[in-house]
Amino acid sequence: MKKVVALIHDTYEDLELMYPVLRMREAEIEVTIAGEEGDKIYKGKHGYPCKSDIPFNELKSRDFDGVLIPGGFAPDKFRRFHEILNLIQEMDKQKKVIAFICHGGWVPISAKILKGKKVTGTIAIKDDFENAGATWQDAPVVIDGHLISSRTPVDLPDFGKAIVEKLQ
Amino acid sequence: MKKVVALIHDTYEDLELMYPVLRMREAEIEVTIAGEEGDKIYKGKHGYPCKSDIPFNELKSRDFDGVLIPGGFAPDKFRRFHEILNLIQEMDKQKKVIAFICHGGWVPISAKILKGKKVTGTIAIKDDFENAGATWQDAPVVIDGHLISSRTPVDLPDFGKAIVEKLQ
Repeated sequence: MKKVVALIHDTYEDLELMYPVLRMREAEIEVTIAGEEGDKIYKGKHGYPCKSDIPFNELKSRDFDGVLIPGGFAPDKFRRFHEILNLIQEMDKQKKVIAFICHGGWVPISAKILKGKKVTGTIAIKDDFENAGATWQDAPVVIDGHLISSRTPVDLPDFGKAIVEKLQ
Repeated sequence: MKKVVALIHDTYEDLELMYPVLRMREAEIEVTIAGEEGDKIYKGKHGYPCKSDIPFNELKSRDFDGVLIPGGFAPDKFRRFHEILNLIQEMDKQKKVIAFICHGGWVPISAKILKGKKVTGTIAIKDDFENAGATWQDAPVVIDGHLISSRTPVDLPDFGKAIVEKLQ
């Protein structure tokens, strides 16, 4: 059984977290939710509640086959945690799946793993992607090796499908 | 291409509407959102916004292969509309997919199509199901012919899979 960690913090984009999480569970992929604190309810940008299973400081790359980074404004928090940046860097070296959507792209930018890569995300952070050395593409989903990215909630059907197919 | 109509009104359960809608779109099933008014934004129980495409009074069973009825407290509204009860009764006669989750079961109860059927839904309305002549089962998903039902958001991975498989 494949295992994925999904990151959470307040103001996560409700569907950008929950659609891929439920879609992976449908495909019998085990999903763990990691927050700044474990066993705490975080509220989405629109108010949807979701409880974390473990805290960021217990994250170990060897425990997971992939990571999901939702958008909303939670990524503005995620990128400040060295535990998260370490996790992303290690998973990148191990070619594990790194999936990010919308503002989620800020996290691989801060992990400095995007130079020369093709990505997408909300147009609001196109300049941040380009300044990090990536090429931003206007497409529902962009797959560059183990990196999978999408723009907005409208792209979730393509994003979920790409994540599940890559992990299977 | 298969076509499904999903019902919406204020206080719909955010994920019970949106997970199956996005999951069907992933499977290239065309989904139309129908509300009391067309082209209006309704807010979920937790606040997620979703715009209706058409009003209830334009619903015709011949336009669709199935109907999705989410929970939350929106079903308390849905069951008051004769246009919806007519739609459910016609789709039942035509053996089209009727999918309901949580409190969504109130709608087929009011359409009086559940006598002798196996169903599930939130335990809160178990008595309503039984008084309508149905047998309530404690399972993530119950499929009885063209009727597909689930209990709560935790069951969404099973609910989405069952709907897509039945329509394909």
